[in-house]
Amino acid sequence: MHRAATGLPFDDIRRLLADMPGPDLAARKAAEERQGQLVKPPGALGRLEEIAIFLAGWQGKPIPNVMRPTVAVFAATHGVAARGVSPYPPEVTKQMVDTFTNGKAAVNQICGVFGAGLRVFDLALDIPTPDIVERDALTEPECAATMAFGMEALAGEPDLLCLGEMGIGNTTVAAAIYHGLYGGTAGEWVGPGTGSTGDVLARKIAAVEAAVARCKGQLDDPLEVLRRLGGREVAAMAGAILAARMQRVPVVLDGYVVTAAAAVLHALNPASIDHCLAGHVSAEPAHARVLEKLGLAPILDLGMRLGEGSGAALSIGVIKAALACHSGMATFAEAGVG
Amino acid sequence: MHRAATGLPFDDIRRLLADMPGPDLAARKAAEERQGQLVKPPGALGRLEEIAIFLAGWQGKPIPNVMRPTVAVFAATHGVAARGVSPYPPEVTKQMVDTFTNGKAAVNQICGVFGAGLRVFDLALDIPTPDIVERDALTEPECAATMAFGMEALAGEPDLLCLGEMGIGNTTVAAAIYHGLYGGTAGEWVGPGTGSTGDVLARKIAAVEAAVARCKGQLDDPLEVLRRLGGREVAAMAGAILAARMQRVPVVLDGYVVTAAAAVLHALNPASIDHCLAGHVSAEPAHARVLEKLGLAPILDLGMRLGEGSGAALSIGVIKAALACHSGMATFAEAGVG
Repeated sequence: MHRAATGLPFDDIRRLLADMPGPDLAARKAAEERQGQLVKPPGALGRLEEIAIFLAGWQGKPIPNVMRPTVAVFAATHGVAARGVSPYPPEVTKQMVDTFTNGKAAVNQICGVFGAGLRVFDLALDIPTPDIVERDALTEPECAATMAFGMEALAGEPDLLCLGEMGIGNTTVAAAIYHGLYGGTAGEWVGPGTGSTGDVLARKIAAVEAAVARCKGQLDDPLEVLRRLGGREVAAMAGAILAARMQRVPVVLDGYVVTAAAAVLHALNPASIDHCLAGHVSAEPAHARVLEKLGLAPILDLGMRLGEGSGAALSIGVIKAALACHSGMATFAEAGVG
Repeated sequence: MHRAATGLPFDDIRRLLADMPGPDLAARKAAEERQGQLVKPPGALGRLEEIAIFLAGWQGKPIPNVMRPTVAVFAATHGVAARGVSPYPPEVTKQMVDTFTNGKAAVNQICGVFGAGLRVFDLALDIPTPDIVERDALTEPECAATMAFGMEALAGEPDLLCLGEMGIGNTTVAAAIYHGLYGGTAGEWVGPGTGSTGDVLARKIAAVEAAVARCKGQLDDPLEVLRRLGGREVAAMAGAILAARMQRVPVVLDGYVVTAAAAVLHALNPASIDHCLAGHVSAEPAHARVLEKLGLAPILDLGMRLGEGSGAALSIGVIKAALACHSGMATFAEAGVG
């Protein structure tokens, strides 16, 4: 948390964004060549080939591997939840964190199937961020400190980092970020989230509209969008994405809320999320549009809208299969085929 | 192979189709109720919920499981391959079967990641079926015997059966089956397969057109379409799907060629493939249209077009995750959430 004391903390973030490592092009090229030699028609494994080549570049290995995939779930509470924007009460955030700890949520089961580790980051759950309709969610030092905290997701040295979140009210926050970044109308960015309909959905749209209107003229800087309209989990995930980039660890995004963290970075520098894959496209209507803006094609499309990192974790199976084919298949020459 | 000697073998098939077991509706209902109690917003796991409920019905268990998933790959050779309809020579079929046996093909690696067993069925590779442009691929007794042979895929008592195939020339054969079943023009059903372009693709379209034209007036019965235009792997897979149904084992289809076997059964009786899931939609252009005709929504869409059962095997990861969530998540009451 010491970063919060360094005077102009957002400048630290900007310095990182100005000097990011790119992929290892030699490893990437070697992986491409290997794919052309494996015993299959060229391109016949489709997206699996692209994933293997992508990971080769970011891991800097012609034959990449995923031995320590980690799902990092960031949980936070939101003042705006008191406006009744969700069918669930704010207490559910803490209860779900306990469920993650007890191994009984969806993301625990999916991690178990694919041998992924799960880390849960509790972001001051007892102190909700202020209601974004009335006040900024975070000060600049708070936001920068939370981003720095998110960088801890890299502490276990994962070779693939999947991001997830939990926070009643956070699809409202994410919608406000998208509305703040991309304009349009609030209604274009708001969806049902955990299941908001009728009056609840109307309150959600009104909250997003009012929060963005409150910040009129102050949202040109995407980091200002993040701190004024965001939540702690979104800031922490933005920090995690950036830290992963500095270490060239590939990242898998989850759904609508996680993607808001990537959208802030993308608005600062489009190249800053080149190391990210979209694990899935969620059923939240605006998610597909945001992914398109970010230039990300989702690996899975299964109508999921749970959060928790569940869609990102599910894509680990596809990623592991892609790497198993890349490393384990014979070449035409080895197999004596053709 | 004794079925071939019973006089009117297709009548045996028709008898099976007239008396198929349906899903266990009580198990299905219990699974639906359980999904409504698990600690997530209703429907938030999307397709994963549907898959768990589907398997509950067919396995006849409120909490289904997949402990012995099997990928059965059927390999056959085709006289039509001599027409130069594929960029690969016919010998590749046998070479790829050897590669499966040596554990070095794509499907081996995918099976390894998801703990699936692989069985390869060699259908008289040294004796290609006649060129369908000139003659029927199989006699009625041969076709019925091959369907019976395909039923052997159930011998290991899999709790989930994934189907795959290998056979240079078999996307030509599958296109002929679709053209025979659904009409239209040959060009509508033919795609590049392993990579046919230019003259090769033109020869492929011409072969499909000529084969179906040869059988004019003789294709009203879908079993006649299968024996006149099909190949041994397609007939065997149709038998495997039917045998799985009699034992209520859920089936996962792979791509364009495997789906031709399901399309023949569907044309005989649409309910006959109610126990089938589409593992993926392939890059072969007509596959998506066929799946739509069959009422099947693919689990994965990753631009794959390899065959071998690779897309079906890849979907095992999603299916296992669906079942892990269904069995391992707490209910709201158990978790004390809400």
